[in-house]
Amino acid sequence: MKRRENMKGFAMMGIGKTAWIEKEKPVCGPMDAICRPLALAPCTSDVHTVWAGAIGERTNLILGHEGVGEVVEVGSLVKDFKKGDKVLVGAITPDWNSIAAQNGYPQHSGGMLSGWKFSNFKDGVFGEYFHVNDADGNLAPLPDYVDLAVGCMLSDMVPTGILGAEMADIQFGDKVCVIGIGPVGLMALAGAKIRGASEIFAVGSRPTCIQVAKDFGATEIVNYKDGDIVKQVLELTKNNGVDRVIVAGGENETIEQAVKMVRAGGKVSNINYLGEGEYVNIPRAEWGVGMGHKMIIGGLMCGGRMRMERYSLLVKTKRIDPIKLVTHTLKGFEKVEESLMMMKSKAPDLIKPVVIL
Amino acid sequence: MKRRENMKGFAMMGIGKTAWIEKEKPVCGPMDAICRPLALAPCTSDVHTVWAGAIGERTNLILGHEGVGEVVEVGSLVKDFKKGDKVLVGAITPDWNSIAAQNGYPQHSGGMLSGWKFSNFKDGVFGEYFHVNDADGNLAPLPDYVDLAVGCMLSDMVPTGILGAEMADIQFGDKVCVIGIGPVGLMALAGAKIRGASEIFAVGSRPTCIQVAKDFGATEIVNYKDGDIVKQVLELTKNNGVDRVIVAGGENETIEQAVKMVRAGGKVSNINYLGEGEYVNIPRAEWGVGMGHKMIIGGLMCGGRMRMERYSLLVKTKRIDPIKLVTHTLKGFEKVEESLMMMKSKAPDLIKPVVIL
Amino acid sequence: MKRRENMKGFAMMGIGKTAWIEKEKPVCGPMDAICRPLALAPCTSDVHTVWAGAIGERTNLILGHEGVGEVVEVGSLVKDFKKGDKVLVGAITPDWNSIAAQNGYPQHSGGMLSGWKFSNFKDGVFGEYFHVNDADGNLAPLPDYVDLAVGCMLSDMVPTGILGAEMADIQFGDKVCVIGIGPVGLMALAGAKIRGASEIFAVGSRPTCIQVAKDFGATEIVNYKDGDIVKQVLELTKNNGVDRVIVAGGENETIEQAVKMVRAGGKVSNINYLGEGEYVNIPRAEWGVGMGHKMIIGGLMCGGRMRMERYSLLVKTKRIDPIKLVTHTLKGFEKVEESLMMMKSKAPDLIKPVVIL
Amino acid sequence: MKRRENMKGFAMMGIGKTAWIEKEKPVCGPMDAICRPLALAPCTSDVHTVWAGAIGERTNLILGHEGVGEVVEVGSLVKDFKKGDKVLVGAITPDWNSIAAQNGYPQHSGGMLSGWKFSNFKDGVFGEYFHVNDADGNLAPLPDYVDLAVGCMLSDMVPTGILGAEMADIQFGDKVCVIGIGPVGLMALAGAKIRGASEIFAVGSRPTCIQVAKDFGATEIVNYKDGDIVKQVLELTKNNGVDRVIVAGGENETIEQAVKMVRAGGKVSNINYLGEGEYVNIPRAEWGVGMGHKMIIGGLMCGGRMRMERYSLLVKTKRIDPIKLVTHTLKGFEKVEESLMMMKSKAPDLIKPVVIL
Repeated sequence: MKRRENMKGFAMMGIGKTAWIEKEKPVCGPMDAICRPLALAPCTSDVHTVWAGAIGERTNLILGHEGVGEVVEVGSLVKDFKKGDKVLVGAITPDWNSIAAQNGYPQHSGGMLSGWKFSNFKDGVFGEYFHVNDADGNLAPLPDYVDLAVGCMLSDMVPTGILGAEMADIQFGDKVCVIGIGPVGLMALAGAKIRGASEIFAVGSRPTCIQVAKDFGATEIVNYKDGDIVKQVLELTKNNGVDRVIVAGGENETIEQAVKMVRAGGKVSNINYLGEGEYVNIPRAEWGVGMGHKMIIGGLMCGGRMRMERYSLLVKTKRIDPIKLVTHTLKGFEKVEESLMMMKSKAPDLIKPVVIL
Repeated sequence: MKRRENMKGFAMMGIGKTAWIEKEKPVCGPMDAICRPLALAPCTSDVHTVWAGAIGERTNLILGHEGVGEVVEVGSLVKDFKKGDKVLVGAITPDWNSIAAQNGYPQHSGGMLSGWKFSNFKDGVFGEYFHVNDADGNLAPLPDYVDLAVGCMLSDMVPTGILGAEMADIQFGDKVCVIGIGPVGLMALAGAKIRGASEIFAVGSRPTCIQVAKDFGATEIVNYKDGDIVKQVLELTKNNGVDRVIVAGGENETIEQAVKMVRAGGKVSNINYLGEGEYVNIPRAEWGVGMGHKMIIGGLMCGGRMRMERYSLLVKTKRIDPIKLVTHTLKGFEKVEESLMMMKSKAPDLIKPVVIL
Repeated sequence: MKRRENMKGFAMMGIGKTAWIEKEKPVCGPMDAICRPLALAPCTSDVHTVWAGAIGERTNLILGHEGVGEVVEVGSLVKDFKKGDKVLVGAITPDWNSIAAQNGYPQHSGGMLSGWKFSNFKDGVFGEYFHVNDADGNLAPLPDYVDLAVGCMLSDMVPTGILGAEMADIQFGDKVCVIGIGPVGLMALAGAKIRGASEIFAVGSRPTCIQVAKDFGATEIVNYKDGDIVKQVLELTKNNGVDRVIVAGGENETIEQAVKMVRAGGKVSNINYLGEGEYVNIPRAEWGVGMGHKMIIGGLMCGGRMRMERYSLLVKTKRIDPIKLVTHTLKGFEKVEESLMMMKSKAPDLIKPVVIL
Repeated sequence: MKRRENMKGFAMMGIGKTAWIEKEKPVCGPMDAICRPLALAPCTSDVHTVWAGAIGERTNLILGHEGVGEVVEVGSLVKDFKKGDKVLVGAITPDWNSIAAQNGYPQHSGGMLSGWKFSNFKDGVFGEYFHVNDADGNLAPLPDYVDLAVGCMLSDMVPTGILGAEMADIQFGDKVCVIGIGPVGLMALAGAKIRGASEIFAVGSRPTCIQVAKDFGATEIVNYKDGDIVKQVLELTKNNGVDRVIVAGGENETIEQAVKMVRAGGKVSNINYLGEGEYVNIPRAEWGVGMGHKMIIGGLMCGGRMRMERYSLLVKTKRIDPIKLVTHTLKGFEKVEESLMMMKSKAPDLIKPVVIL
């Protein structure tokens, strides 16, 4: 039997530790594809995974779940992709025939959040090669109108941001507050705009992000440095509160603030990974003593080919413009390490770095 | 100018104090009706209002928001009702042309929860006469197939219970847990059954309630005396959790339990008045670190003629059988006081008393 | 008793006949308002009403249901408006406490389509004064950021267009075809864009309308002069069909075309008044022999203050730009007649005329 | 290479012709299962397929898509099933990773209606063995509380009936008319009852079916022999019309009747296979001249393991009782032919025959 080839990858070696490692190339099952990366991007989740130990201990696990690839091998049952195809890859790669997927929640196939496999249950995309389960369901062709950097944004930033707007169930003319204007919050804001929001209050403080927030449709910037954000939002709405809040940053307490600033019958949609603490605290009185119809939901992006194709069309027709998230571009596979460190230290002018291979 | 007649009523005199008082008869505006009660029922909320001070201090406020009446006067703009009509009356009587009502939340017209007027902002139904705003919108004809005791249940118990099932957004075959099987929880259970639930786990301990829960469709009784209810429900579902939870009793901590026992993508629907404490605590980990798609909502019944007519039809066609809630029947207006005390002391065999006038 | 004053108005005298008439000023009930017009616009429906006899015979009926007014009198129960207020007025003025409204369909209060009262069951807005039922529910303050011409568009064109996008239930990235790009179709197109559509195919032929369609977000123009529109749309979508179709013009056969060009699981939303013919024909085979999940719905705008306020905010935040519909502006009340004739003859460069008083 | 074994099956030989044939046993792919039938049932669709040529010419195609099986072989990727397992099998067996399935319409994966494979694109279940694509997604374990005859009803009758109630989007207290009370209409009726309908009008004439309709919750029987069914239903609803109509039988004209008897804002849900004619005719006036908000939809059952498991739970908890559909039971594989002929000739006392092997 032939020994499998080795490949290089940038990995988590334990909580707080990273390294370049050598590993065997992944094996391609009948439904699967093996890809090599064309472009890669680090995510705040990678930072949480390594330095906060958010998902617990992991060793020799290649990091990364955002990227664009080229197919180098496909399984015998794969119908729509072949060697040489350039492809979009979702951060979440569900099992589409699972009970959870049949029930509308592919991201929770195999258990809550278990549609998230890259750099969680299996090696991520920061390797010379990476494995994609169910290629027909979880890859999408890279259209010629999507460049590599934007393609990386379609792995996670775009679908997660749009999920925030979707769960918020925005109606025509809604006043929406987006708390947190890092890359995910900015895409949520862009999503809110093309979902029918009128006034959009963006909560943030970094000038680079504020500029993109305005470009994406924010009508008002709320800066926590100017005082309590709940008070500011209530003033802006003459104490009526906003119709919807999308939480895309902050801490557990941010949900409390969201509940306080939303009107009766309003909705709070969370897309922020809550990494610490025992509880999220819902303020009883402002929650209408349990009867105010203030809906609270938080979710993980769905994954899958259909959404990547749909969001590509939003790029094509200029409904969204994710390239504005990409403040820094690096060249060469080995720069993946540097890009992750940039995400960790988060310089004032950084929104998102991309590595082009 | 003619002086208005006086009437008697059973009132809250301050937190912890009740008394029979004399007050002027209410005045009928152009859209309104004045009714005299034919049957009345006390509600746990009345107990909260008086003895827990749940809505703050109130003086000389006639209590009660559940009852069946006879119209004694209507305003000039009222089209569908006239003197002598027997009518169902909702506990919540919204302003139907308000922004909140146009937005789908009549119960929050005039501010969060402000569709609740009886025994809150104005005198309730425990008087010789009571005032109903917007008679065409807030009364419904008492059908001959609805008896007086059932009619009282249509004021609050039935619509609140059904709201619990509605907000839970039950799908065909869902496993549903109903926590709390007082009168509201029992009606929520009945609602869940006719909304398509399969297995229904009823959490409670009083034998009288357990019997009705079984009659209404509970497939399993979960008793907190047998241990942690979360653990019991997880065992009953092979650790998959239930699809939906309706919270109709307990304390703030009950919401925490609900979140722990519901599956990813499931829903928690609260119809319990949360009277105390600063926070409702959502367990971060079991809430999927903010990304588990476990929706949480709590609401107040909607009110209005349409729903009373619809739920009357559910009685007519025997889809629901609210008479089973009525464990005790008293005779005579003056028994209203006794009925409230029964609700306060809650004997083991009591679900709901009704006073027939 | 004082005799009521007379007023002038431009009226339908019978099918095919119009005239200026004198009538008594309308009387203000307790919930109502009397307004004088500040700006008015004719609607294609007015043309249908008079010259096609679409709603049957009408005599001495003042025409018009689009306009901005100034309140000259309010009833005793009106809370939010007073003499001198400048107001937006909806073309549809529902009875908000009706069963239909409580059921989510205020436009059908009093019977199917009966929320439409102006120039149908009572005098319209083309008089020196006009009557508005339920002023608090059916007027909205004219914001300073809405000019008079845009205010007229908020009576009917904007809410009807947005309804088209709402009923179509557009999802992020949907390909949408809008058939008919008169003023309503153009607003539907604008609505589709801010609801998340990606590619928007606009079916029309007049250059003036095509220009605005492109401004509003059309990505492709489909001209029936270039051949069968179904074939063209299928070619543009590689035979997959579009996700949604909004029908805003054409004849009964247009619905047939819509069904043919929409994918399985897609939706057809009609906002076109179908004035003639016994049937709308659904093509059996392309409708999936009854099992293709191609949903068909058609509706009337909802009416009401809340939506006028929300859509005003969409104007304020530049999400929609209805002024582009207004191709012609006339001055003086008496020009209402000319404006209607312009709507009737529909010159190539006309989208919508407005009369400023 | 070993020659594959042969097997027997009951097949369509051409339009109007059936025969027992010999064919090679089907081959099992990595995701698939091969089963042998334990119980089988014929469907009206089989009759349409053979004698009406509804899906066009087919030769040597084994018929049948309703049955319960035993797994005899599984592919290497199948996780949840193994040889010897007794299983429920859906009539529709989608490709779960397809774009259509990711979009919520697995039944249309591969093209409109193309989730329907058995006895359409590949051999059906009336063979000694049959092939199931994606075993994990399209089989469900046969629970001990589901007997074989009921198991057959879970292939098609139950999910199709429930789909009728689902698409109708029934609300608590809705008045529902079910047109057609063959086996699918009866299950739709049962579904409507447990979805919250109050009054249910069942349109039919055969005494056997009428009895089951009453058992399943019909509150009124409407017999076309007593006159126009539209007129009868309007009389029963005091000319208000019903809230929902489920069409489960009749001809294309039945949809026209449904539109006429439903109220503005109501919904018409079709689950009837419309086999002939060019058009389904929607009556323009009663459809509110295109603006009455009368939604029309028709669909194919969804398929998949999740729903079979859910509907099994509805059997377990006695929410539905499909055994009442099974009026005739035959013994032995060779009786499949006789059962199909029974379905074709439809004796007065027949609802559904089942063959136990």
